[in-house]
Amino acid sequence: MQFSSVLLENAVNEFAKLPGIGKKTALRLVLHLLKQDNGSVLHFSDSIAKMRSEIKFCNRCFNVADGDICSICANSLRKQDIICVVESIRDVIAIESTQQFSGTYHVLGGIISPLDGIGPDQLHIEALVNRVEKEQTAELIFALNPNIQGDTTIYYIQKKLQPYAVNITTIARGIAFGGELEYADEMTLARSLQNRLPVEKYVSHR
Amino acid sequence: MQFSSVLLENAVNEFAKLPGIGKKTALRLVLHLLKQDNGSVLHFSDSIAKMRSEIKFCNRCFNVADGDICSICANSLRKQDIICVVESIRDVIAIESTQQFSGTYHVLGGIISPLDGIGPDQLHIEALVNRVEKEQTAELIFALNPNIQGDTTIYYIQKKLQPYAVNITTIARGIAFGGELEYADEMTLARSLQNRLPVEKYVSHR
Repeated sequence: MQFSSVLLENAVNEFAKLPGIGKKTALRLVLHLLKQDNGSVLHFSDSIAKMRSEIKFCNRCFNVADGDICSICANSLRKQDIICVVESIRDVIAIESTQQFSGTYHVLGGIISPLDGIGPDQLHIEALVNRVEKEQTAELIFALNPNIQGDTTIYYIQKKLQPYAVNITTIARGIAFGGELEYADEMTLARSLQNRLPVEKYVSHR
Repeated sequence: MQFSSVLLENAVNEFAKLPGIGKKTALRLVLHLLKQDNGSVLHFSDSIAKMRSEIKFCNRCFNVADGDICSICANSLRKQDIICVVESIRDVIAIESTQQFSGTYHVLGGIISPLDGIGPDQLHIEALVNRVEKEQTAELIFALNPNIQGDTTIYYIQKKLQPYAVNITTIARGIAFGGELEYADEMTLARSLQNRLPVEKYVSHR
């Protein structure tokens, strides 16, 4: 693409570095911003720069926070002795959106994946074990993506937690609501048969 | 969506204001930026703020420019007496990408569209007429989108230019390369039959 302005070209190139945004989309976004007034574009660029430079990570659960402790850990109405272990901040947002969980989180920052060079030491696993020991956590719920790496991570952490009297669970695997049986893979279908629920329990959840 | 950080929420909301970007995509982009180092995110936000506050529009053709005159108007190798009239900056970039045009441009900033409340006075039509008069332009090529508004704009400008000895043309309408005859609309097909080309001319263009 040929631009007659270096300023425009720089802005387009910066946008095109974002995931899933090509040159044409980048140009569309930049020309949109060019049509907005100066103030709102400054507001846009400021909010991004500020987010990156001022955001902190919670000392306790490694979720994003505006201070030393995130708003979930600081909320006394939430059950502080229940910890939901997730891979990333994105999962915290997804679970919070369900409004069905009133405990706290622990963000691992990834999952154990030797092929990608990610071992237990790069994740916040030691902090989790220390937390369970110090806080005498009652229940630990694993909400990791259902794949080999997720299962390995669960197995590793569970081994580490054996000395402590914490109840360890994992979110249910099964056929997704609205899914169709015939298109489910065999492993999911087999697991959902093994872990079948009494109907009263299922009905009471609806 | 529930965020545990106001900084994160602000950044996501700002991204979600861009056209074609919803909340989930905005979150994905913001979390991507959060993973980058501080310097490159500052570079991203600076390039956007700078683009909006420092970019200028060419005094002559209203294309984007870094100074008073855009790089195309300032280029003495380009034929300054041929003007290609386009709707927006985007069209300039599209035509420049073909590398087939060596004249200059005139960006109208829109097309006449009474339904959207856009009349000739909101566009850079007077500047175009003055330019043709002053510069004794040899040829004016209309490269507007082929629709009623585009044709109205062509008709209006052509009337205004009647006193001047300028040769007025429009880019060819017809079946697009790679298009299929059976799916072409009747108007396009009818026009491409009326304006048929001698085969020698077609072959020489390839």
